Amino acid sequence: MTADQADSRIVAAHQAYEDARDVEPRVRARWLEEVAAALESHADELVSLGHEETHLDEARLRFELRRSVFQLRLFIAEIVRGEHLDATIDHADPAWGMGPRPDIRRVNVPLGVVGVFGASNFPFAFSVMGGDSASALAAGCAVVHKIHGGHLRLGIRTADMVSAALAKAGAPQGLFCTVVGREAAERLVDHPLVRAIGFTGSTAGGRALFDRASKRRVPIPFYGELGSINPVFVTQKAWDTRREEILTGYAASFTMGMGQFCTKPGLLFAPVQDPGEVSDLLHRELASKQPSLLLSPALREGFGKALNSVQSASGVEVLVAGDEAEAPRPTVLFIAAQKVREQPEVLEQEMFGPATLVVGYNPGEDLADLARLLEGQLTATVQAEPEEDVSALLTELRERAGRLLWNAWPTGVTVTYAQHHGGPYPATTAATTSVGTASIGRFMRPVAYDSFPASQLPVPLRDPNAWRIRRRVDGVWKEPAVQREDSK
Amino acid sequence: MTADQADSRIVAAHQAYEDARDVEPRVRARWLEEVAAALESHADELVSLGHEETHLDEARLRFELRRSVFQLRLFIAEIVRGEHLDATIDHADPAWGMGPRPDIRRVNVPLGVVGVFGASNFPFAFSVMGGDSASALAAGCAVVHKIHGGHLRLGIRTADMVSAALAKAGAPQGLFCTVVGREAAERLVDHPLVRAIGFTGSTAGGRALFDRASKRRVPIPFYGELGSINPVFVTQKAWDTRREEILTGYAASFTMGMGQFCTKPGLLFAPVQDPGEVSDLLHRELASKQPSLLLSPALREGFGKALNSVQSASGVEVLVAGDEAEAPRPTVLFIAAQKVREQPEVLEQEMFGPATLVVGYNPGEDLADLARLLEGQLTATVQAEPEEDVSALLTELRERAGRLLWNAWPTGVTVTYAQHHGGPYPATTAATTSVGTASIGRFMRPVAYDSFPASQLPVPLRDPNAWRIRRRVDGVWKEPAVQREDSK
Repeated sequence: MTADQADSRIVAAHQAYEDARDVEPRVRARWLEEVAAALESHADELVSLGHEETHLDEARLRFELRRSVFQLRLFIAEIVRGEHLDATIDHADPAWGMGPRPDIRRVNVPLGVVGVFGASNFPFAFSVMGGDSASALAAGCAVVHKIHGGHLRLGIRTADMVSAALAKAGAPQGLFCTVVGREAAERLVDHPLVRAIGFTGSTAGGRALFDRASKRRVPIPFYGELGSINPVFVTQKAWDTRREEILTGYAASFTMGMGQFCTKPGLLFAPVQDPGEVSDLLHRELASKQPSLLLSPALREGFGKALNSVQSASGVEVLVAGDEAEAPRPTVLFIAAQKVREQPEVLEQEMFGPATLVVGYNPGEDLADLARLLEGQLTATVQAEPEEDVSALLTELRERAGRLLWNAWPTGVTVTYAQHHGGPYPATTAATTSVGTASIGRFMRPVAYDSFPASQLPVPLRDPNAWRIRRRVDGVWKEPAVQREDSK
Repeated sequence: MTADQADSRIVAAHQAYEDARDVEPRVRARWLEEVAAALESHADELVSLGHEETHLDEARLRFELRRSVFQLRLFIAEIVRGEHLDATIDHADPAWGMGPRPDIRRVNVPLGVVGVFGASNFPFAFSVMGGDSASALAAGCAVVHKIHGGHLRLGIRTADMVSAALAKAGAPQGLFCTVVGREAAERLVDHPLVRAIGFTGSTAGGRALFDRASKRRVPIPFYGELGSINPVFVTQKAWDTRREEILTGYAASFTMGMGQFCTKPGLLFAPVQDPGEVSDLLHRELASKQPSLLLSPALREGFGKALNSVQSASGVEVLVAGDEAEAPRPTVLFIAAQKVREQPEVLEQEMFGPATLVVGYNPGEDLADLARLLEGQLTATVQAEPEEDVSALLTELRERAGRLLWNAWPTGVTVTYAQHHGGPYPATTAATTSVGTASIGRFMRPVAYDSFPASQLPVPLRDPNAWRIRRRVDGVWKEPAVQREDSK
């Protein structure tokens, strides 16, 4: 697709945004419900197409689609409650502490057209109608989606389905549309009518687009989810207590989806001096995993390079020898913590695929100190016993990760109100989440109305609260009165 | 100050941040209250020093200091209520729609060391202990403040007072410190331990630092408030009804503080065909304004250049002739709307000082269409009659400004819960506010805790709610029970 063709899609999306920006959340909710229903009713077709193109197994794809549909409905409920508007009303107050204040009210409004780059590894949850698209549409934006080449047919089919559903529900044409190919993708980041980008992909590709977005005459926010190694720290006590359980969980988590998860545990810090003491167990666990094709030849090539790079670092041993075949068998590498201190960059290489690195630390070694060697992460995990004091380690991990886990595994990200999927760079390029209801706010900006008469205010800011949303009034949060009575 | 000297301040600030990051909001509140009390009790000295260096009149400086102290106390109350934490708790739920969910909880944590660049035009409200510093400290960050050369002695004196107050209250040393000069300023933007920048200043200077922050190996958020022209649109009806009142308000607003406000109305769109019909009234109004010295010689030079640039644009006439003296008399320029359409860039030149441009439009001309010629703004104002339908104009202005005003003037920004001081680029570099309680959130990031036992969770996320803060629990916002009983 040429840049000119991308232009006309973007202009159409902007027109749709203008037609839709002032629509009541309940109406937007109906549009999105139509999309959810369409995805649901075409699950068989979509899953089968997705399997053909991505080699991900059907059960996983079916779950992923269900998750995407659930996510859309969670966002629908959120905007009907008006949570995303953050409506705030300060009535005029002649006795305000710094001097008389005028009537001032604030509400979030959508940014405009949002460009969304689909990820290869989640053809539903982080692609066409994945988290970025769903949250941008829920926010009131129009979406121009860059279809990932790794599942082009699925992308086009899903997009057609989404467009048809939106049209059927009465949404303006162009509210959701797509572009394909590199030239169109770059145009998407450059176009003056595009007001934000959602991206999930590699650190190199994401950083290049972030730089592009930042260099624009009018820079735009670039919400990029790039790379993460997702370290796991096992305390001596946990290791002594349940070593087998931990290694079993580890083996399952890093091979899930052939290791092609952004939350795959790529590092395990454990009190291992003799690599031999864990290799038997890992061998046994991993022998039962059935390898399958990776997402694409390009990804396989990248996996091979990354694996070789880590493997050739000084002091790295092979614990479980896998391979770089089309359907690679999993690899476990080992390095001693003191060798890591000499070359901490070995902790920065993401191996996107079924490989992971065990870092063996010595008895009494300071785990918090090891944690300081890490870059920004999506997740960091502690395997410890409940009564242990690991607060120093947790504090260091909190500085470096967006989600901390306790005696759990990072793969599998539930979509909820509290979820946070994002972390210090390079995990993400902004301190925001791309999963959960909090992701909607990324695509909005606040506008204050100063000294407005009621008749000229936007509906959510008028005293009567016709949309029945939660609002902060003169500093105090108020639930909508009518809704409360209803819910009794 | 050398880059090395800046380094040691930054390292000290980071140590203080580490020592203070987990302190309870009530303790942090006591530290900040000590700062507020110190500023208050030294008002005479600070105001007098400020007047010497900035030439701003004492009444204005006294009000500005009072505003800064009020702001600090408003933020104190906000963090004690825990509003900034956005604490969210989702208990484990085996029946969750997308599949069983683990216990997951989220809280905002401070970013770390924040660099704050003081503005020349508000030596209290946007300088040493102005909005950026106050919100960053309230968020739990440490602040390294770059003192503006325009009020160096005041800056140093204020900073000493702030440091002494923090020490007296028991805060760790280095939680607030300063740097001076260009080399140290650049180091502040580059240093790996600095996690965000707050800036108020010119578009050129701000953009250069924004680019610097974006190009870092680890990019950081740059909250810059750059340039804004703050257009005012007068409808035909308002003009017919109260032309004199409008021109009087306009003259007072654009000359306030010698026009050195970021919210100064720099453009007035009015149905004026013959410039002569307004010049008499403006002459009369402006004759009564007593000119005073501008903030600095550098600023005066910039004002002269900007004024000449607008004045030399094709079709620009002088309505009221001022000058570029050390204490310049105000200037009003005029241009017809059709000439603006040929060269819309004439609307982009901020004249920081006592000068403004009247744009005369023809009867029946589409104001929304004229609004589309504008760049991003901090404010946009409509002067209209209550019964008029100006929704198309308001919509265009909403797309381009962060605060809309109705029959009011943009100078004077109250500090409240609903306030928003920020707008599309170049007004600001991010869709955030630098005024009001919402500014605190800029300096925090969310962290989620997945599957944690109660004893290992941070206090604000434990079920008992010891800090008595408002939290969202399983999707429903809950007021702290104990506080409710107290407040009865």
